[in-house]
Amino acid sequence: MIITSLENNKIKDLVKLQSKKYRDSTNMFLVEGVHLVEEVNKSNLLKEVFVVENDSFNIDVPITYVSSDVMKKISTTDTYTNVVGLCEKKNSNEIKGGKILLLDDIQDPGNLGTIIRSSVAFNVDTIILSPNTVDLYNSKVLRSTQGMFSHINIITMDLVEAITELKSRNITVYGTNVNNGEDVRNITDTSSFALVMGNEGNGVSQTIQSMCDKNLYIKMSNNTESLNVGVACSILLYELER
Amino acid sequence: MIITSLENNKIKDLVKLQSKKYRDSTNMFLVEGVHLVEEVNKSNLLKEVFVVENDSFNIDVPITYVSSDVMKKISTTDTYTNVVGLCEKKNSNEIKGGKILLLDDIQDPGNLGTIIRSSVAFNVDTIILSPNTVDLYNSKVLRSTQGMFSHINIITMDLVEAITELKSRNITVYGTNVNNGEDVRNITDTSSFALVMGNEGNGVSQTIQSMCDKNLYIKMSNNTESLNVGVACSILLYELER
Repeated sequence: MIITSLENNKIKDLVKLQSKKYRDSTNMFLVEGVHLVEEVNKSNLLKEVFVVENDSFNIDVPITYVSSDVMKKISTTDTYTNVVGLCEKKNSNEIKGGKILLLDDIQDPGNLGTIIRSSVAFNVDTIILSPNTVDLYNSKVLRSTQGMFSHINIITMDLVEAITELKSRNITVYGTNVNNGEDVRNITDTSSFALVMGNEGNGVSQTIQSMCDKNLYIKMSNNTESLNVGVACSILLYELER
Repeated sequence: MIITSLENNKIKDLVKLQSKKYRDSTNMFLVEGVHLVEEVNKSNLLKEVFVVENDSFNIDVPITYVSSDVMKKISTTDTYTNVVGLCEKKNSNEIKGGKILLLDDIQDPGNLGTIIRSSVAFNVDTIILSPNTVDLYNSKVLRSTQGMFSHINIITMDLVEAITELKSRNITVYGTNVNNGEDVRNITDTSSFALVMGNEGNGVSQTIQSMCDKNLYIKMSNNTESLNVGVACSILLYELER
């Protein structure tokens, strides 16, 4: 069977998943394109796949074929997509491991995606998102992660609560400040750490900043006020992974 | 005088500068927002400023006031802009200094902007763009640089020609390859270098790759195929700036 009607209830439900509200209430989300669908399937999050009629796709979850008009409706990219995957969220609430990244209200989807991709590359165990961080299941975020979001423990939690828990576990909490702090190259004990990265415009909030044990900075030319937050975070994680 | 007509010839010319073709033929470009306008003025590229009526702006170039409808027409962002600057391109053709970055067909405006910002932070002397790289004067690129593009020598040049010139100057040319090469942490002589970064999807082209003296890689977890190109480039430049 091929679904050709935009009024089909299943299709209407998929389209609704473009809104955060509906993703939150159903605990489901969509990924687009072959690469993302295959990555997500490795982590058993994939429940069903929608494929454009006449196209073929080999995967071990139920496949539904749709017309190209229906595919255009359920996908969010301007470019041609032939596969969309329906997935279930992971819903972890636990801070696992000793290498922790805390994100304080990151707003740009590309930045969050890049940070998640770098976190997997540099062996972060858990990423903690503040409740006002851009939604992880936003299609632009998922695309920027290149599917890596499914290979790492990501939770949403109040950061004050999170830092309190991390301190009770004797994990050093590093803030980030351009003007004031210690060169990350001088950090020798990197066996466990928690790193806090702030919002693109405002940095780390005052309350969170005051809870950090120490600030880290990246040595750079005097011409520059700051780096892109995704870049800064990636360099810090790279240095802390030794 | 306040320009209120969208049919004003000066305004029509500004709007045309949203296209690369017109920027190329006039040698002019636009920057949007107070921060970018002020940064560009430090490098004497700013020729004239357009400000929304009733707003004030203090700068040492001619100011023209426009209605908010006209401002909406000449700016490319969805968010409110009150200042747009008309600038002249720098038009350098010379490879200056001994720390060189070559970009082989980078396509994403955000990636190019981020790379330029990081290049200033880590003291690159010249960035060489391949002719098919996304246009430097694209408004998204300029915004992502945070104005840093005006503080660094950026030229467009055929990369085969550029590498030939760099080799004649005895500058080591590093390619980038995830699977094959030397850990950037092991590079000890960083007094001069040329680093080639490739296109987001295809990496460095075969011809250019074959001209490189050595490949560099960033040590990372086996789970990851690659990093975002802006992140990878920034980490390599950070390591080469010691």
